[in-house]
Amino acid sequence: MLRSCAARFRALGAPRGSARRSFASENVPDRDHALPNFSWHKDLRLLFDQFMKKCEAGSWKRLPSYKRSLPETVQDFQTLYVDPKLLKKQPISQAQLFTRSFEDGLGFEYVMFCNDAEKRVVCFFQGGPHLQGTPGFTHGGAIASIIDVTTGTCAFRAGGAVMTANLNINYKRPIPLCSVVVIKSQLDKVEGRKFFVSCNVRSVDDETLYSEATSLFIMLDPNKKLT
Amino acid sequence: MLRSCAARFRALGAPRGSARRSFASENVPDRDHALPNFSWHKDLRLLFDQFMKKCEAGSWKRLPSYKRSLPETVQDFQTLYVDPKLLKKQPISQAQLFTRSFEDGLGFEYVMFCNDAEKRVVCFFQGGPHLQGTPGFTHGGAIASIIDVTTGTCAFRAGGAVMTANLNINYKRPIPLCSVVVIKSQLDKVEGRKFFVSCNVRSVDDETLYSEATSLFIMLDPNKKLT
Repeated sequence: MLRSCAARFRALGAPRGSARRSFASENVPDRDHALPNFSWHKDLRLLFDQFMKKCEAGSWKRLPSYKRSLPETVQDFQTLYVDPKLLKKQPISQAQLFTRSFEDGLGFEYVMFCNDAEKRVVCFFQGGPHLQGTPGFTHGGAIASIIDVTTGTCAFRAGGAVMTANLNINYKRPIPLCSVVVIKSQLDKVEGRKFFVSCNVRSVDDETLYSEATSLFIMLDPNKKLT
Repeated sequence: MLRSCAARFRALGAPRGSARRSFASENVPDRDHALPNFSWHKDLRLLFDQFMKKCEAGSWKRLPSYKRSLPETVQDFQTLYVDPKLLKKQPISQAQLFTRSFEDGLGFEYVMFCNDAEKRVVCFFQGGPHLQGTPGFTHGGAIASIIDVTTGTCAFRAGGAVMTANLNINYKRPIPLCSVVVIKSQLDKVEGRKFFVSCNVRSVDDETLYSEATSLFIMLDPNKKLT
């Protein structure tokens, strides 16, 4: 049942067709953002091409990513996991996935690849000029966000619908604005509904360790509604 | 010397005129975003009004906030703290502060107040529809971001230019999208250049604890340039 909710699949970048319902193409609310656009640095394109070749070999899979969930799929999610009292207060007409809510090149440019057999997710990330913190560097909150997305996807691939319970990030070196980095995440342990994931953020040449993090995610339970 | 760098003051919301240089009004790149706009929920306006009255009494101070740092002030910051080799690679023309890079009402709406005597910073935050994570709820990365901003400002008020070294967040309850929350931060300890800050995120009525976090910030040292 957990794996049948289209909202989770769409929110975490799963391809159309993997969810319970199928939708006509005219209902697609926006394009797949996990594909190259004009703003991508050559390093990001190169990494993308390398992993697309790995996908052809079969062990890795690219994860599509969308700004909006379809209204029907949101309804599916809410029916399963959200307390009905809360729903009246929730405006969804303008809702967009946080890390996809920027124009091309200005915010989060990224693509994720998963290896389900090895319980790993890799994210190639380019932080645009609207993610600035200290002048000339990517904001610590933006780094936390892409770490949350990557590790959350790693947990989701193993356990279905999850929410973040803990995020613990060590920032080792600042990331220059607009540079490309590689985030490698790994599911370390599962205890009941708890999914423990770790990750590191490195430069493309692997020589610089920018950040390390651990994350804990809790698998959602339809019997314990979100309130 | 640390307190004289205008870039830090602007990045962390200090008023114009508190930095070393003074600038003519025609150079102001954008407006102060830490003031009410059409999108603010009545709860956010009420909290703002309450704390503006406290400001009149003298113990609290509202912190203005801007999208962009002035080019001259960025140059000041880079001269002090950044390795010259890195500067060639850094595009700043489009750079904007991450948490101010959304249109009014769609992203991070917030105002911070500080009490320097008590080493506290309070942030009133309304997360807009473009900060969605799980359908209907604010993204964990967006929550991490506003926590980083609030605790970072708390450290900055005590120590000047700082960067995040650790962020450890426990997410207790999901925050419904577009709701208003209160983030209270407190400087707990200073050890050399290390500034330890803690905070919690609660509902306006104080009844719901959404998140708790600890943060560690390192005061920047002009003798150890960012590379």
